[in-house]
Amino acid sequence: MTDSPQTPADDSEEQRERLAAELRDAIDQGNSEWVRQTLEGMHPADASDLLEQLSSDRFEATVELLGGELPPEILIELREEYREDAVEVMSDEAVVEALDELQSDDATAVLEDLDEDRRERILEELEPEDRAVLEASFEFEEDTAGRLMQRDCLAAPEFWTIGQTIDYARDNAEELPTDFYEVYVVDPMNKPQGYVLLSQLLRTERDVKLADIMEPFSSDIHVDQDQEEVAYQFQKYALASAPVKDRDGRLVGMITVDDMVHVIQEENTEDLLALANVSSADGSDTVWESVKARAPWLGINLVTAFIASAIIALFEGTLDRLVQLAILMPVVAALAGNAGSQGLAVAVRAIAEREMEGKAGRRAIVRETLTGLVNGVIFAIGVGLVAFFWFRDMNLAVVLGIAMLASFAWAGVSGILVPLTLKRMGADPAVASSVFVLTLTDTMAFFSFLGLATLFLL
Amino acid sequence: MTDSPQTPADDSEEQRERLAAELRDAIDQGNSEWVRQTLEGMHPADASDLLEQLSSDRFEATVELLGGELPPEILIELREEYREDAVEVMSDEAVVEALDELQSDDATAVLEDLDEDRRERILEELEPEDRAVLEASFEFEEDTAGRLMQRDCLAAPEFWTIGQTIDYARDNAEELPTDFYEVYVVDPMNKPQGYVLLSQLLRTERDVKLADIMEPFSSDIHVDQDQEEVAYQFQKYALASAPVKDRDGRLVGMITVDDMVHVIQEENTEDLLALANVSSADGSDTVWESVKARAPWLGINLVTAFIASAIIALFEGTLDRLVQLAILMPVVAALAGNAGSQGLAVAVRAIAEREMEGKAGRRAIVRETLTGLVNGVIFAIGVGLVAFFWFRDMNLAVVLGIAMLASFAWAGVSGILVPLTLKRMGADPAVASSVFVLTLTDTMAFFSFLGLATLFLL
Repeated sequence: MTDSPQTPADDSEEQRERLAAELRDAIDQGNSEWVRQTLEGMHPADASDLLEQLSSDRFEATVELLGGELPPEILIELREEYREDAVEVMSDEAVVEALDELQSDDATAVLEDLDEDRRERILEELEPEDRAVLEASFEFEEDTAGRLMQRDCLAAPEFWTIGQTIDYARDNAEELPTDFYEVYVVDPMNKPQGYVLLSQLLRTERDVKLADIMEPFSSDIHVDQDQEEVAYQFQKYALASAPVKDRDGRLVGMITVDDMVHVIQEENTEDLLALANVSSADGSDTVWESVKARAPWLGINLVTAFIASAIIALFEGTLDRLVQLAILMPVVAALAGNAGSQGLAVAVRAIAEREMEGKAGRRAIVRETLTGLVNGVIFAIGVGLVAFFWFRDMNLAVVLGIAMLASFAWAGVSGILVPLTLKRMGADPAVASSVFVLTLTDTMAFFSFLGLATLFLL
Repeated sequence: MTDSPQTPADDSEEQRERLAAELRDAIDQGNSEWVRQTLEGMHPADASDLLEQLSSDRFEATVELLGGELPPEILIELREEYREDAVEVMSDEAVVEALDELQSDDATAVLEDLDEDRRERILEELEPEDRAVLEASFEFEEDTAGRLMQRDCLAAPEFWTIGQTIDYARDNAEELPTDFYEVYVVDPMNKPQGYVLLSQLLRTERDVKLADIMEPFSSDIHVDQDQEEVAYQFQKYALASAPVKDRDGRLVGMITVDDMVHVIQEENTEDLLALANVSSADGSDTVWESVKARAPWLGINLVTAFIASAIIALFEGTLDRLVQLAILMPVVAALAGNAGSQGLAVAVRAIAEREMEGKAGRRAIVRETLTGLVNGVIFAIGVGLVAFFWFRDMNLAVVLGIAMLASFAWAGVSGILVPLTLKRMGADPAVASSVFVLTLTDTMAFFSFLGLATLFLL
């Protein structure tokens, strides 16, 4: 079973599961040689995927089996929770060694996982130059360009030729980042003036000056900018990388698209979960973590659900006399709630993609209200008909239909106004908005249906 | 007001709105010169954003104002609906001219917008070589690597040196794509053997052979692969670009990360909307498009809501005697529905990120069930207490609490099993799942609460 290391490319779920089972056996048997060879034979991203299939205990056992260290290229691919676990098991020396081999942005990510005491201690152990670079990263807020950028990039003065630039790269091969896509052309103050794509540089004759073929930047990224804004620029201008400027406009680093893909995915996940009232989630969450991420929202929902109940209680007398109302009222609430959630999801997505600014926002309010009305008419007729054939009571059917129409129109308005208002207040429009919208639609559904019934059916 | 063209970099929402207002005035006054200069003075992505702020009518008027054409680099940046509009207004000649200037993947995207007759007619007008390339794209399914890839890329035989490769690029500058990040090293059968990053090539001496510095591919992309799978590989291996192989493993094109960022965003949006029961959405949707994207789901919800009503109707006699049940039953349904949606959102996200395979999936089922039970206990006590202090009826409070616990456990199980089952059946786990989950939780909530009440409170 534990004969020879495997290579990746195992594409089917079945093969991946078998490999995971073999790894578990090898760990339990303490077969460190097999574990080491298997992990080293794989792409680091595949190796980290494999490790993330382990339980927390077995994962820590693996790091210990490997002598209290993990290859840095695997370490950096791990999801945060696993990376934190790994770093906890690793000795200070092993962490220092890993940091030495990583690029500055990846090293910063590892250091973020450490508590402050240990971080200080480990920074002390680094070469003064590396330490200075990493300490500088921590001067910027989390989730800003300054924290995400890597320090090394290829910058060249405007008067250099293609030939000089290539010669410089060959002479300084060691200091350049592994992977970059453009040369930044800077003025004597180190302010970026334009860029030359490597694919452009490659096809240009040696004696051409950089200044003659450089392109102006479409991006404008500075150290304090939020990662969401940076990701937006990457998406909009289809960038592979972009320079980062300090507060005086001087070139201090570079951000590459792979990090931004990660940010885009993260922001999308946050929105999706927030709309479903979950604060955070991860495949490896424990029950306790899941409860913590969900119970507070359910607690708020408890309060709002009883507000809706209180509305119903206002009409206790009516309900007592017409039990059909109790049977039908959840229909109004369910459909209107669904319509409100639809509008809300569309609005949250449009806000995230910046399609809701100025006139577009006002147009969306009109559209959502009208959509609510049109769907309201359709479903007022729909539920009215069903109720009529069920209870053979025309007045009841009409009351239900009118309540439906009112609730749909209200759902349309709430679904767009709640997120737009949250945004205007500077809050995240995805967070908390679905609780608000559902409370508003529930309240309206019960109030309009039971209120109309009290007026016209008793 | 319409004095001089503006450059982009207008960052504030206010400035963007002012520019949009100026553009509207210029269009209405037929000031084609101002419109042309303004658009040409901006980055194409900014210009397309500006145009997308226009109503459909004014947008078409703009294209006509510009002589029935739109600069191809702006055309390709437009969102699909606007691009379709533009192409509709443009003459065949203008479309042919635009296609001539675009890369093959972008040209394919424009051709996709045309109806088949017009597409055929326009393909006829192209140079035979360009036509062959574009016609070949249409042999692949939509949303596959074959459709998304661009045909041009830099491939070189293994025995070439760095120097030969650079000389080749200089001699064939015109035929290379504008932007690429690596050289693909191919064997005599044109099968890719490895790649050399341009940033690696740049720093290497002229006499080194490509074969000596090439790296093996981590990606494995073929023409028929779905774009979601391709995007997954880009994310996992942090790729900037990757070669695409035909069915025989020969190099036929290249996909770059900017297209994949688009796909990632699209897939995320689809999931978010699907969970809220919306088929599709765009900032520029009309009321009619919104109704079409939402009404079918509301129709399904109409059926499921009446199923829940039918459950309530089973207990008509009970409700008739105890009106408090009608007041409290929406609380059980609302909270259990919320708990189910939470679990569902977490599951859909984890499935999309492939964190739900094999053992991880089974672990998630256990976790979700236990989370349902733990939250169930917390909120059983919570709603029980509120109900007790409200109605001063211990038995009612206990029945409510037990129904809550049962519904929460059920919500936990449904929230994870529904999407996993849909996935196993080969369906998209985000689509339709929230209707299923809410129907299951509503049914359970009403049945358990009213059932227990019938047994113990009458």
